[in-house]
Amino acid sequence: LSSRLPNVGTTIFTVMSALATEHKAVNLGQGFPDFACDPKLVDAVTAAMQAGHNQYPPMAGVPALRQAVSAKIAGLHGKAYHPDTEITITAGATQAILTALLAVVHPGDEVIVLEPCYDSYVPNIELAGGVVVRVPLTPGTFRPDFAKIGAAITPKTRALLINSPHNPSATVWSRADMLALQDLLAPTNVLLISDEVYEHMVFDGQAHESASRFPGLAARAFVVSSFGKTFHVTGWKVGTVAAPAALMAEFRKVHQFNVFTVNTPVQHALAAYLAHPAPYLELPAFYQHKRDLFRAGLAGTRFKLLPSQGSYFQCVDISDVSDLNEADFCQWLTREVGVAAIPLSAFYGNGFDQRVVRFCFAKQDSTLQSALERLKTL
Amino acid sequence: LSSRLPNVGTTIFTVMSALATEHKAVNLGQGFPDFACDPKLVDAVTAAMQAGHNQYPPMAGVPALRQAVSAKIAGLHGKAYHPDTEITITAGATQAILTALLAVVHPGDEVIVLEPCYDSYVPNIELAGGVVVRVPLTPGTFRPDFAKIGAAITPKTRALLINSPHNPSATVWSRADMLALQDLLAPTNVLLISDEVYEHMVFDGQAHESASRFPGLAARAFVVSSFGKTFHVTGWKVGTVAAPAALMAEFRKVHQFNVFTVNTPVQHALAAYLAHPAPYLELPAFYQHKRDLFRAGLAGTRFKLLPSQGSYFQCVDISDVSDLNEADFCQWLTREVGVAAIPLSAFYGNGFDQRVVRFCFAKQDSTLQSALERLKTL
Ligand SMILES: CSCCC(=O)C(=O)O
Ligand SMILES: CSCCC(=O)C(=O)O
Repeated sequence: LSSRLPNVGTTIFTVMSALATEHKAVNLGQGFPDFACDPKLVDAVTAAMQAGHNQYPPMAGVPALRQAVSAKIAGLHGKAYHPDTEITITAGATQAILTALLAVVHPGDEVIVLEPCYDSYVPNIELAGGVVVRVPLTPGTFRPDFAKIGAAITPKTRALLINSPHNPSATVWSRADMLALQDLLAPTNVLLISDEVYEHMVFDGQAHESASRFPGLAARAFVVSSFGKTFHVTGWKVGTVAAPAALMAEFRKVHQFNVFTVNTPVQHALAAYLAHPAPYLELPAFYQHKRDLFRAGLAGTRFKLLPSQGSYFQCVDISDVSDLNEADFCQWLTREVGVAAIPLSAFYGNGFDQRVVRFCFAKQDSTLQSALERLKTL
Repeated sequence: LSSRLPNVGTTIFTVMSALATEHKAVNLGQGFPDFACDPKLVDAVTAAMQAGHNQYPPMAGVPALRQAVSAKIAGLHGKAYHPDTEITITAGATQAILTALLAVVHPGDEVIVLEPCYDSYVPNIELAGGVVVRVPLTPGTFRPDFAKIGAAITPKTRALLINSPHNPSATVWSRADMLALQDLLAPTNVLLISDEVYEHMVFDGQAHESASRFPGLAARAFVVSSFGKTFHVTGWKVGTVAAPAALMAEFRKVHQFNVFTVNTPVQHALAAYLAHPAPYLELPAFYQHKRDLFRAGLAGTRFKLLPSQGSYFQCVDISDVSDLNEADFCQWLTREVGVAAIPLSAFYGNGFDQRVVRFCFAKQDSTLQSALERLKTL
C-alpha cells in the first residue's frame, strides 16, 4: 500500500501527550485547558438532549447557533454574515480548514502557508491535490514578510492560509498587517483561509483583527473559529466558518459529504449559551493572568522568553539551558524533568531547529506552578 | 470560482427534509428516528461531562470505547481487531468513508461503486482524486452481479465500496454473496470499504454478514458502522471504522488532519453503555415490527411493495399510483399529500428513473399511522 501522506507520522500533539501520560509529566504540550468549562454549558447540553435534540440537525448547523455566530461577528467586527448562506457549523476548526481546501483547490493549484504553521495545513493541502508553497515568517520575530508573500504569488495561487493569534509563535497580526495583506491581495484572485481559533486570547489591550473586519479580505475569506478553544471544551469538537455565500456554497458541497453535520445537542447548548451577554469578554484578562504567571515564574531561569501577544502559548529559547536540539530537548524535558512541551521544529516542513520550544499556559494556576517548580531546577 | 464538485447540489436528504418542514409533511424521507434514545445514554453523556471529560480525547478515540467496539465485533463476528491499532472512532460513517478514500486513493485510481448507492460515495471518490466506476446492481432485484463487478476490475482499481443492509434498496447480502465477493477479490489487490451502518436492522431471522467475518475480505477492508443509527442518536455524529493495522495507520494519518478526534463525552457515554449486555440485540425485532406495520398499511393500496430485508427503508413502485416520474412524485407527495419520501433516482449518477421511491420507517408507530392515513387516500 503506497501512502497518500508518506512524510506524515502521528501528529506531534498526540505523540507528546502520550509521552506526558507515560512519564506522569505536567502536560504543557498539546493545547487544551485542564480546567472545567462553565457548568451552565454542561447543563445546556443535558437540557438539549432531554428536550429530544438528538437527531440530525440541518446540514449547515442549527439555525439558532448560526444566528448567534452571525450576531457575534457583527458585534465584534462589524461584518454581517447571513446566517442561512454564510455561516456553517463544523466539527472543529481543523475540519473547517480541510473542507475549505477540498472545496476550492483543484489539482495542481498552489496554496501558500507561512512557516512555522499548524501541522494539519500542509497535509490538508496535499490531500486536496494542491501544491504547498512555504513562505517563512521573519526569523526571530515571526512577523509576516509581505514582500516574500507577494513574491510567492503566481497565477496558479489558489489560496493563502493565515493564522492570528499565531500558533506556535504567539504573535498577533496588527491592523497594519491586515491592511497590508488586503492591499497585497487586491489585484489577485487568491482566496484566504484565516484560522482565528485563538481570537479571544489577545493580550495587553491589543485587538484581534479578524479578516472579517477588512472588506477586501472578507470578500475572499473563509474565517475559521473554534468553540472548543473559546469555551474550554476542546473535546466537544465544534467550530464555525464564515464566508461569502458563493464560497460557502462550495464549502457546503464538501462539508455535507465529509461529516454531513455536527453534534446536535452541543449546537443547541452553544446557541443558548451565546444568548448570555458575551461570555467570551473575560477571556483576554483570564488568559493574560496565566501568561503573566508563567512568564514571571520563568523570569529568573535561563529560559529566554519570547513575546506572547496572544494564543495559549509561550515560546522560550532553550539555548542557555541545554545543548540538545529542540525536539530532543522536549523528549528529555518530558521524561527527565516531568514537563511536556512542543518543539517549534514540528511546525516546519524541514524540521528547522532554532532552539525554541512552546509551552501551553491554558492550565490551572496550580498546574502552571507545578511545571514552574520543575522548570526552575534547570 | 470553478467548482470542485460541479455536478453536486445540496444533498437530497437536506432538500426533502426542508420541503417536509415547509409543508408540515410527515417526514419519511431522510433516514433518522423520530423517537427518543435510551435515557440511560443521555444520563451517561451528562455524567461524562460532569466528570470533566470535555477536552481532547486520544486522536483514535477513547480507549474504553475502542475496546468495547473490538469486543462487540469479536462477539458478533468472531474477528478480533486490536483496539489500539485497528479501531478508530469517527464523526459518523460518512466521515469514515471520505477519510478512508482520502487515505488510500491516489489521483487517477479507480474506485468501484454499485448503483444505486448512497449520495456521498461518488463525490467522496472525486474529492480523493479517484475515477468513479459505476457497476449497476441487478435491475429489479438490486442483487450484486459478481460477473459485472469482476469485469469492472482493472489493474487501476484501488477500492470497491459495498453497503449491506443496503440503502436505498433494503436488500441484505447473504453469506453466499460475501463468499462470492471474497473469491472474486482473492487474486486482486482491491481494497474494500464496507458500509455497514444498518448492521442491526436485519429482518426475518437473516444474519448480518459483516465483511469482518470473512478473512479474505477483512484483510483488505475498512468496516464502517454508526452509533447514531444503532442507538437512535443520528445527531450525535459518531461512528467507527475497523481495519487491519496497516490500513488503519494510513486512515489515521488523514483522520488526525480532518476532524482530529470525536466528541469526548459522547465517546465515554457509549463506552459505558456498551458495557450493558448488548443493547443492540433487540433492534431487529424492534424495526421488523415497524417494517411490518408500514407494509401492512400499504397492502391495500396501489403502491407495489418491494422486499425489505433490512435497513430503515421500504421501497415501493409507484407506477400504478401516478404518472409522474419518481423525483416529481416525491415533490408532489410532500406538498400535496403531506408525506415526504426519497426518489431512488437520487442514488444514481444519471438520475435513472424506475418509478420507485423510498420511505423510512424508523419512526414512532403513530408517525407511521399518520403517514399511512394520507398514503391510503391515493
Ligand atoms: C488537535 S491537538 C492540538 C491542539 C493545538 O491546537 C495545539 O496544541 O497546537
Ligand atoms: C446524512 S442524512 C441521510 C440519512 C440517511 O442515511 C438516508 O436518509 O439515507
